[in-house]
Amino acid sequence: MISTPKEELIARLRKVQQVIVDQQADACIITTSVNQFYLNDSIFNGYFYILPESDPLLFIKRPIGINGNGVEYIRKPEQIPDILNQYNLPLPRLLLLEADALSYTSVIRLQTALNMPKIANISQKMREIRAIKSDFELNQIRESAKIHAEVYSQIPAIYRPGMTDIDFQIELEYIMRKAGSLGIFRSFGENMDIFMGSILTGNNAQTPSPYDYALGGGGISPLLPLGANGTPLKNGTTLMIDMAGNYRPYMDDMTRTFAIGKMPEIAYHAHQVSIDIHNEIWETAKPGTLCSDLYLLAEKKTKENQLEPYFMGTVQQAKFIGHGVGLEINEPPVLTLRSKEALQPGMAIALEPKFVLPGIGAVGIENTYIVNENGLEKITLFEEALTTL
Amino acid sequence: MISTPKEELIARLRKVQQVIVDQQADACIITTSVNQFYLNDSIFNGYFYILPESDPLLFIKRPIGINGNGVEYIRKPEQIPDILNQYNLPLPRLLLLEADALSYTSVIRLQTALNMPKIANISQKMREIRAIKSDFELNQIRESAKIHAEVYSQIPAIYRPGMTDIDFQIELEYIMRKAGSLGIFRSFGENMDIFMGSILTGNNAQTPSPYDYALGGGGISPLLPLGANGTPLKNGTTLMIDMAGNYRPYMDDMTRTFAIGKMPEIAYHAHQVSIDIHNEIWETAKPGTLCSDLYLLAEKKTKENQLEPYFMGTVQQAKFIGHGVGLEINEPPVLTLRSKEALQPGMAIALEPKFVLPGIGAVGIENTYIVNENGLEKITLFEEALTTL
Repeated sequence: MISTPKEELIARLRKVQQVIVDQQADACIITTSVNQFYLNDSIFNGYFYILPESDPLLFIKRPIGINGNGVEYIRKPEQIPDILNQYNLPLPRLLLLEADALSYTSVIRLQTALNMPKIANISQKMREIRAIKSDFELNQIRESAKIHAEVYSQIPAIYRPGMTDIDFQIELEYIMRKAGSLGIFRSFGENMDIFMGSILTGNNAQTPSPYDYALGGGGISPLLPLGANGTPLKNGTTLMIDMAGNYRPYMDDMTRTFAIGKMPEIAYHAHQVSIDIHNEIWETAKPGTLCSDLYLLAEKKTKENQLEPYFMGTVQQAKFIGHGVGLEINEPPVLTLRSKEALQPGMAIALEPKFVLPGIGAVGIENTYIVNENGLEKITLFEEALTTL
Repeated sequence: MISTPKEELIARLRKVQQVIVDQQADACIITTSVNQFYLNDSIFNGYFYILPESDPLLFIKRPIGINGNGVEYIRKPEQIPDILNQYNLPLPRLLLLEADALSYTSVIRLQTALNMPKIANISQKMREIRAIKSDFELNQIRESAKIHAEVYSQIPAIYRPGMTDIDFQIELEYIMRKAGSLGIFRSFGENMDIFMGSILTGNNAQTPSPYDYALGGGGISPLLPLGANGTPLKNGTTLMIDMAGNYRPYMDDMTRTFAIGKMPEIAYHAHQVSIDIHNEIWETAKPGTLCSDLYLLAEKKTKENQLEPYFMGTVQQAKFIGHGVGLEINEPPVLTLRSKEALQPGMAIALEPKFVLPGIGAVGIENTYIVNENGLEKITLFEEALTTL
């Protein structure tokens, strides 16, 4: 297992401490798996208690057996005040919490236990901090992308006529797991269920889903209405493969589309427009480029090619063409018209201009790019053309 | 896909409406996937707005295209008051929300949007309602258990000397998915990550984890410290298989343990004690039996056999021996000493008295039982002995 260098963990902690100071808060408590891992290189059930100047305290319920400075075992948050007192620390008047992720019940319980007049939300700030990656983090995304490409290279060997989309997905999941896929696929937000990624063929690509991902699909259960739904892979339809790049804690994201037999001309055309959008953004984007301008560029190319009715869906059209990736699959920035954000060095962004063609399926590609000082570095290096299976 | 009968959906809704009346509330909003599915047979991004007497309203953001009485498309919760007004409905003074699952930010936003003086929590009540299943629900658990047993029957064919636990798990996941496993594995609670279940061998069974499952394991990534960790399957150790029974929206839960080569006598002995606990509970438990008494029975048998140091773990010992199962893997009741609950007809409970033996691994079995009027019905019918692979 990869360990995060100690100096990097300290640098990350410093950023959070700066937020505490900026917001004139007294402390911050981190409880979500992703942010605990980010700051502490491990996950525990408990409270990572960050102070603006001194070392953090770890109030741990489980697992047993963690040693170190500031580690205190507790059964419940009501024990925290006494322990703070033993450390000669006051109760916080203003505490930062991950209010976008922590349940209402948990927040109220903490607020009551610590007798706090005020709490504030650090969820978005944590996401902003995590959006700018170090070389250590970016290298994990590069490594994941490399394995991702090796896995996708086995796609043609999987295909057999008569398969359904879910048959295909199961074969690909198996290869992914053998290649080190962690299985779990973390995303931010309530009810953002996903399992190992998404495969779409034919008109299932038009099925709108409740989730905030780029495309939909009906799924194999009403309990997870997303992705493959058992549609047979038929000549004249496409197979869009957007499976997880979860080979490291830090993920990449990559979509490729395959043709089953001969396609109508519009499929090749729209697929090429997606590649053209990629290439123009790859060549021109750099630190300072507005995310909204990337969206506008994609929209312009779409209009020039009269593909608006198919852009990011048909019945339901997503309003973004990409997103940051990292420990979660949907990190900032979001490449949308309403974004006020600009690209910054250290960001990793997945760009996914896609088109959904009725009667055919989805076309287009998704690549992950790292924002370097001089421009974008493409890291998902795998054949981009609409290749026939 | 299975559809829930309309009269059953109405009966479920009536139970929630009764809670609204009992708590003298004005309405209830359901937003989590599991509870939306339970009440509406589908998942959407939005608010399922339940009134004590009239039909529910569905405030939907996504997916597009849902028709029906009371369906209203919205972009944000701030639009709800105007729509309520169009229906001649007042703003609620007291609203029930799933406060254990909904984020603090979402609750505050709803509270502000609806200008509500008071909210209350319906999460636990929903779990209690869901704990008592109908025949329609129980049949799905029975069906899932049947497929689960068919999948486990392929375990001996998977095993090859030299495999690691994760190699083994990947082969089993593949068989599970082909048999219709939904992939996703829902559990209640914050940070309760799990992927398709858990396989433990050797001393990895002793590794404490941050999660609130029966046993631990180190996992293959610090981002998911649970279950298989790459330990080679060695002679003289056990392989405990506790993979998901997620073949229907309603799940069963089943653990079986296999011996790799010849085991020390204590492994057979402790495994038999687990089976004995099962048999005694199976024969004696019935509606009205206290969950705490089931725990005490298991604890007594454990003490009689001098197995206390190994009961439900070694370094970290779980304080429960079973739990309800259904749409989530950890439903009420919890079979723990502190429980005040009694078994009721319609419950589905997974019983998992397990022992962790240093140098050997975990032993014991887990079965799912349905609580009928006359007693327990065992539904996970599969060889229980410690079979050599």
